[in-house]
Amino acid sequence: MPALDDLLTCLRFPSVSTDPKHQPDVRACAAWLVEKLRGMGLTVELHETPGHPVIVAKNAHQPGRRTVLLYGHYDVQPPEPLNEWRSPAFEPTIRDARVWCRGATDNKGQLMAHISGIAETLAQHGDLPVNLTILFEGEEEIGSPNLKPFLEAHREELACDVVAISDTGMVAPGVGTFTYGLRGIACLEARVHGPAIDLHSGIFGGAVANPATVAARLAASLHDAEGRVAIPGFYDGVRDLQDWERAAWAELGDGEAETLELTGSPALFGEPGYTERERRWARPTAEVNGIGGGWQGAGSKTVIPREAFVKISFRLVPDQDPARILDLAEAHLRAHMPAGARLEVHRGHTGQAYLMDPGSPFGQAARRALEKTFGGQVALIREGGSIPIVQAFKDVLGVDTLLLGLALPDCQAHAPNENFPIASFEAGIRLNQELLRALAA
Amino acid sequence: MPALDDLLTCLRFPSVSTDPKHQPDVRACAAWLVEKLRGMGLTVELHETPGHPVIVAKNAHQPGRRTVLLYGHYDVQPPEPLNEWRSPAFEPTIRDARVWCRGATDNKGQLMAHISGIAETLAQHGDLPVNLTILFEGEEEIGSPNLKPFLEAHREELACDVVAISDTGMVAPGVGTFTYGLRGIACLEARVHGPAIDLHSGIFGGAVANPATVAARLAASLHDAEGRVAIPGFYDGVRDLQDWERAAWAELGDGEAETLELTGSPALFGEPGYTERERRWARPTAEVNGIGGGWQGAGSKTVIPREAFVKISFRLVPDQDPARILDLAEAHLRAHMPAGARLEVHRGHTGQAYLMDPGSPFGQAARRALEKTFGGQVALIREGGSIPIVQAFKDVLGVDTLLLGLALPDCQAHAPNENFPIASFEAGIRLNQELLRALAA
Repeated sequence: MPALDDLLTCLRFPSVSTDPKHQPDVRACAAWLVEKLRGMGLTVELHETPGHPVIVAKNAHQPGRRTVLLYGHYDVQPPEPLNEWRSPAFEPTIRDARVWCRGATDNKGQLMAHISGIAETLAQHGDLPVNLTILFEGEEEIGSPNLKPFLEAHREELACDVVAISDTGMVAPGVGTFTYGLRGIACLEARVHGPAIDLHSGIFGGAVANPATVAARLAASLHDAEGRVAIPGFYDGVRDLQDWERAAWAELGDGEAETLELTGSPALFGEPGYTERERRWARPTAEVNGIGGGWQGAGSKTVIPREAFVKISFRLVPDQDPARILDLAEAHLRAHMPAGARLEVHRGHTGQAYLMDPGSPFGQAARRALEKTFGGQVALIREGGSIPIVQAFKDVLGVDTLLLGLALPDCQAHAPNENFPIASFEAGIRLNQELLRALAA
Repeated sequence: MPALDDLLTCLRFPSVSTDPKHQPDVRACAAWLVEKLRGMGLTVELHETPGHPVIVAKNAHQPGRRTVLLYGHYDVQPPEPLNEWRSPAFEPTIRDARVWCRGATDNKGQLMAHISGIAETLAQHGDLPVNLTILFEGEEEIGSPNLKPFLEAHREELACDVVAISDTGMVAPGVGTFTYGLRGIACLEARVHGPAIDLHSGIFGGAVANPATVAARLAASLHDAEGRVAIPGFYDGVRDLQDWERAAWAELGDGEAETLELTGSPALFGEPGYTERERRWARPTAEVNGIGGGWQGAGSKTVIPREAFVKISFRLVPDQDPARILDLAEAHLRAHMPAGARLEVHRGHTGQAYLMDPGSPFGQAARRALEKTFGGQVALIREGGSIPIVQAFKDVLGVDTLLLGLALPDCQAHAPNENFPIASFEAGIRLNQELLRALAA
């Protein structure tokens, strides 16, 4: 199958965007994509950025047709730890009807399915049913630092009616899945400073505040004992789950058992009154992503450390405002500081939650395409993660994004033994054709 | 001054007990001490241990005389960070009437003062007023792993009426200081386990317990907001401070200002109802010596870590039992565990608090010696740290230990630019002579 050959070729480029030594590989992958798209008859431009290049490709746009922007990324996560791979990370291997390689799912498999769908349509019909703008970047895995400026600089060139992305998940094999919401994010780091030097905890223990204890008390202050976020005002403006959502998600099967198996946690835990799926997809959270202070080695070292830190991220839902959440969090942390220690707060990145109406015309078109591709009922879900580019498309281009992902829970994105079922790849090719057709209507 | 020359010679041995590459230097230092003590007419034995050797030296013991065991250690802390030393760490340098060298205070300066005092007495009188047993070890800075077994194996040979050690501090220059109490210690590490792998905090945040949050909540549960230890039963059996102690310590001057300056803390903090000196010397504490979990690098990484830890040490006072404290602590931590995480507790080392009666005959003798050496009133203090060998002398030899230390707060023991005032060295020589005379009476 030429489409599969193309995928394997694309996978062989170790296009690890975070690693400077792979910079030539990222570029080579981009160059190969440019040639591939040109060979299909598209007009292609490779745009330099301060980082890795952006590819823009178009068919001949005609007035009166819908314009669809298709986004994907050709960079991949680092493959480490290498010794956990059953076959080499950058030598695509077919085993158990899956392709095993870094990037197989995230995002080359899904990106190449779109390319192959477009190629088939062009080969059969000579044109696409819509004005298509392809936008591929090479920096998604490092936070897309140059994408929003690129969108702003090429606003007219990228003007479109809707964006489509295949970089999210399916709830189960063969179940077409439409993601209509994503959580937002707000990060901060609290650094607690106490004595000027690490102190002997025998000589000074009892006299001064211990920054490790203070940092722990700050982290502990984020939740009540049952798992609700305890920051005053945190839940203000949180949009309630709608009845149809709760009903639809309840029909998706036993999420609790699946989450227990995926995480290996001894038990589930979280905000009372919601299923674990509701908590992950539609409720805001506060998580300690890192905490540290004092002796980190084996055994004991009896010090009072001079400083300690807590790294916190909040996952946000409509209509929480990330900046306001960081204001509330900082005020809450400051209110929990004892005498004898000093708090330094560093604000990190933020992103709005995303929610579109799956009953809108574009939402319905996406669902029709999924239905035709997979048969059966389309799962309507939100996801708990954040995809900042979706907000960038909304902010800069003023359009919604259709998330029609093909990743399965066992595809190991970001982990060793990443893989993509060949059936998913083939479904992706059909999905692209159905989607462009549905969006044209 | 020959005594000072001897001190400088002793200091030039980089006898760092923790560092295998300095093993020959530790041994050379021991050999030099053996020769020095033999040259003074004492009977000396070098005892091999599984680690560094123990030196035992005696004058001719005579029935009817008090037997005094003098303890010291000839090993030193590592000198790092080397670039912070104003003169080379193992090249003793005289500057501002002090000797600057690793080990100058801890413990070679104090040990050599005793040797020189003994040498002077022997030179003047041909004998000492007491039966003296010198016990020098080379492993104090690594926790004296072989000392207690050595005491047990040489119980008769080391039998004595009292032990004397100069390895503690003075409250101020020129103020004779008698330490009659030390805090005990009990250590434990709590390890919290949650998911089988680090989880994406977007995808799974809200579904499962976060071990970093759980560890923080455990650490936070150790105290109330004002700094009292909140473990049920923790204060049971704690012996009250006596009125004379509170009065005597209040007379020692402004400890708060000194502690603020020494620690560089923005303010003092601790258990209400006690001065900071009382809190450090006579009240038990719980300190987080280390906490860690999740992302430790710069910036953010949005994970729910699979595990986190808290390293805790308790400083204990009479009559707390270290084993019982660890039982109470473990029960308290287990009671604070939420669903969805598993607690693993590792118990670390323990040591009883030490308290002797400074009004006992030996206590009075030590105070007389300090009075004659320094003039003025002797400060009666406890110290907040723990010296496990003191308990070992009590347990194995059944005797009290007189702590007559000569370290000043600015002597930088364990830090770069360790130093010892020459005046303190000379006072130590006199103190040894006064002490043996007082104990003989």
